[in-house]
Amino acid sequence: MTSSGPQPELGAVRPVPPEVIQRLKDVVGPAGYLEGPGEIAPYCVSWRDNWVGSTPLVLRPAETAQVSQIVRVCAQARVPIVPQGGNTGLTGGSQPHAHGGEVVVSTSRLRRVREVDALNDTMTVEAGVVLADVQAEAERVNRLFPLSLGAEGSCQIGGNLSTNAGGTQVLRYGNARNLVLGLEVVLPDGRVWDGLRGLRKDNTGYDMKQMFIGAEGTLGIITAAVLRLFPRPSETQAAMVAVRSPADSVCLLARMRESLGEQLTTFELLRRACLDYAFQTLEGLEDPFATTYPWYVLLQVSGQGAPGSLREPLEQGLAAGYEEGLVLDAVMPSSGEQLRKLWALREEQAEAQKRTGVGIKHDVSVPLSRIGEFIERADAALESAYPGVRHCAFGHVGDGNIHYNPIAPETWTGEAFADEREKVNRIVHDIVSDLRGSISAEHGLGRLRLEEAELYKPGEELDMMRAVKRALDPLNLMNPGKVLRVNH
Amino acid sequence: MTSSGPQPELGAVRPVPPEVIQRLKDVVGPAGYLEGPGEIAPYCVSWRDNWVGSTPLVLRPAETAQVSQIVRVCAQARVPIVPQGGNTGLTGGSQPHAHGGEVVVSTSRLRRVREVDALNDTMTVEAGVVLADVQAEAERVNRLFPLSLGAEGSCQIGGNLSTNAGGTQVLRYGNARNLVLGLEVVLPDGRVWDGLRGLRKDNTGYDMKQMFIGAEGTLGIITAAVLRLFPRPSETQAAMVAVRSPADSVCLLARMRESLGEQLTTFELLRRACLDYAFQTLEGLEDPFATTYPWYVLLQVSGQGAPGSLREPLEQGLAAGYEEGLVLDAVMPSSGEQLRKLWALREEQAEAQKRTGVGIKHDVSVPLSRIGEFIERADAALESAYPGVRHCAFGHVGDGNIHYNPIAPETWTGEAFADEREKVNRIVHDIVSDLRGSISAEHGLGRLRLEEAELYKPGEELDMMRAVKRALDPLNLMNPGKVLRVNH
Repeated sequence: MTSSGPQPELGAVRPVPPEVIQRLKDVVGPAGYLEGPGEIAPYCVSWRDNWVGSTPLVLRPAETAQVSQIVRVCAQARVPIVPQGGNTGLTGGSQPHAHGGEVVVSTSRLRRVREVDALNDTMTVEAGVVLADVQAEAERVNRLFPLSLGAEGSCQIGGNLSTNAGGTQVLRYGNARNLVLGLEVVLPDGRVWDGLRGLRKDNTGYDMKQMFIGAEGTLGIITAAVLRLFPRPSETQAAMVAVRSPADSVCLLARMRESLGEQLTTFELLRRACLDYAFQTLEGLEDPFATTYPWYVLLQVSGQGAPGSLREPLEQGLAAGYEEGLVLDAVMPSSGEQLRKLWALREEQAEAQKRTGVGIKHDVSVPLSRIGEFIERADAALESAYPGVRHCAFGHVGDGNIHYNPIAPETWTGEAFADEREKVNRIVHDIVSDLRGSISAEHGLGRLRLEEAELYKPGEELDMMRAVKRALDPLNLMNPGKVLRVNH
Repeated sequence: MTSSGPQPELGAVRPVPPEVIQRLKDVVGPAGYLEGPGEIAPYCVSWRDNWVGSTPLVLRPAETAQVSQIVRVCAQARVPIVPQGGNTGLTGGSQPHAHGGEVVVSTSRLRRVREVDALNDTMTVEAGVVLADVQAEAERVNRLFPLSLGAEGSCQIGGNLSTNAGGTQVLRYGNARNLVLGLEVVLPDGRVWDGLRGLRKDNTGYDMKQMFIGAEGTLGIITAAVLRLFPRPSETQAAMVAVRSPADSVCLLARMRESLGEQLTTFELLRRACLDYAFQTLEGLEDPFATTYPWYVLLQVSGQGAPGSLREPLEQGLAAGYEEGLVLDAVMPSSGEQLRKLWALREEQAEAQKRTGVGIKHDVSVPLSRIGEFIERADAALESAYPGVRHCAFGHVGDGNIHYNPIAPETWTGEAFADEREKVNRIVHDIVSDLRGSISAEHGLGRLRLEEAELYKPGEELDMMRAVKRALDPLNLMNPGKVLRVNH
């Protein structure tokens, strides 16, 4: 685990030797690997954006000891490893490269819930447990595991931690990083680090788990984690609010937080155009308002009070916002069915945008105080470069996180607009950078944003990242070519 | 910033050459250094536990650029640096060694509040701003900076972050680590890393700031930080509750969290003996109950409601606890004066214990579900080894953090008991380790717990810490001999 000279880069990759493949198969036994092209295919391709790779072998270890042995064999033979969870990522981080010289290690069979400690508000789970199952297990002991995102039915907790997943409740509970107390990790030399501590306070040196969270498998393979559980809210209220502008939505957020505090759980922004795309391309959606407004906020509050107890505080908060001119109009659903319909407007955005036209996606964040300026400047710059471009912006404004996805002008072909990707990225991300924002708020770097991160991150920070990578993975065998390039 | 062979250890230290001292003085100018023995003395000694060191020069840079130049000069001349904030630490981490070959870099003059962004709920402050001033500045914009601890009138935010400070509101708001979004750090080669991002979401690679938080100055010098601000609670209620045992206090905590959620801000445990020591040695303290009970909990709830609105929910929670036999008795203060008196019982513990006799202090944490077992086993083991030992335990039970400070039996001299420190530490910390706890929950390692951490932490974790230290500080110039030894 000491650094020694430059690490091998991708050019040096060679096919995985047959005798190594045999040793790896022997580690996991017949139930633990896949090698038929049809079986392997789903592990080599992403569900979005067409990341396609190749591998001779997908390993599916059933326990940490097998992961450890796999990594030892690979380290000895200098065979790079691509760790993979539910393969739901959006930046090409979990598929192998096309050269075929890597093996995939899937965590899908590491799916034991090792311990639930309700008194300690913790749960120890293996990396392959599906997020929805983690949520359900917490509910079984009357607790909440608050991480919640679109892919929760198939993504795995190990992947969620490796990518520091965000989702819709970050405003109140934080990112995945904030929801984990301890990790078990198979290190790049095959040793198992047992860091499964369930402690709220532990100041005994560098907090090493922080390096693996968000590392996208480039420093080791997370095999288990101690997760934080929270009290289950007994009361939830929601509202859809029409506002004049993104800047007004941020002022409203501040006002609502002053009166409702951390009970404000979700605060999502939607542009009018996004609603129109949904109404035009999908069935069964309804506009909750009689008139159209330029922007909308979908918000949710939750707490421990009696059912209905948050309705009045929320109404009061919205009324105050109305008095101040921040709220143009508002509806509060009075049934679960109404609530579901409001949320559908937010949740169907991916599908609606896909049906509307070719879009170029950005997952950015800026300080909340700069959100209005970001959207104004990005809109203007894109309109100037691409007259008629269809603006589309929505996202977790409570976290400063906007999914800013301009769609091709109606007069353009999708292919022609897709060819502008580089240039559009530069326009949007230069503005983000100028506002001290992030070019990847919640999706990670993977391969998609690796080169761009080199453009925008401070050199000192890139140097430190490379120094840590070299120190912990000196042979560059853990998911090489993702997140960072070590010899740049 | 690459690793190259073993780093110099303490044996290799030599006096700081006079020409280097002159160059360092030139960097900061006449107002920026101290060298008279009387001036320097306070920087070389700890306020508790008698850590005493020596240095030829205390540097007090006024801006980050000066810190950068200082570190460059030191790196070139291979002179080790001891960064120091308010010098209020408890583990010997911020004083120089006795050999006199180090210079002290005090952050006391880095005291600008660079920016307050109320809409973003952030504040950018320099490392030398005193914690109480950070709190006051937040209050000025109607926000809360929730870090709160005994030394807040003199400790500095840079030191708070370098030690990942805890305090009395961790249950709700987390440790210092959870309260920071970005850092500016002078790295061991003198370069300045501008990581002052005020973002809730940023997944662009390894989260490097996490390595500097809690590193106690061994990886660089934090010179500024972006801090998170929170809504100011408009309503607070408190209670002192008598309970049968620590285990019952943890059950009560779970019950109260179910009904009050994150509004439960503080949950402190006190042993009856601790109250007795306070009554016996200090004036002006009162027992709020007519009878004595074995253990007490001091708790506080806070939220956004109208004044008085949390009184009923708290009363209901306590009544439910009484029904279940968890609450033996309870008082709720009805005035600020009464509240102050209750808190005095907790806050005067350090003084009361000091007056009672020589104690051996431990700052440990275990999973909440094991707190009862920890105290039972530690009490029994100490009583067996030291009949008549006076048990003393109190602390932040809501975080699993107990200050477990046995006091010399009345028949022993203080000196004789102090000589047992090693053995007592071993008894207490072996039990902590067996329960998967931490031997330093909030005070850090410094020099006090460095060797012990080597005993209790997994070898894989120590290896990673050393690898990171070597990677980021290859010359071992940043606070050497604290937190970890690089060549072990």
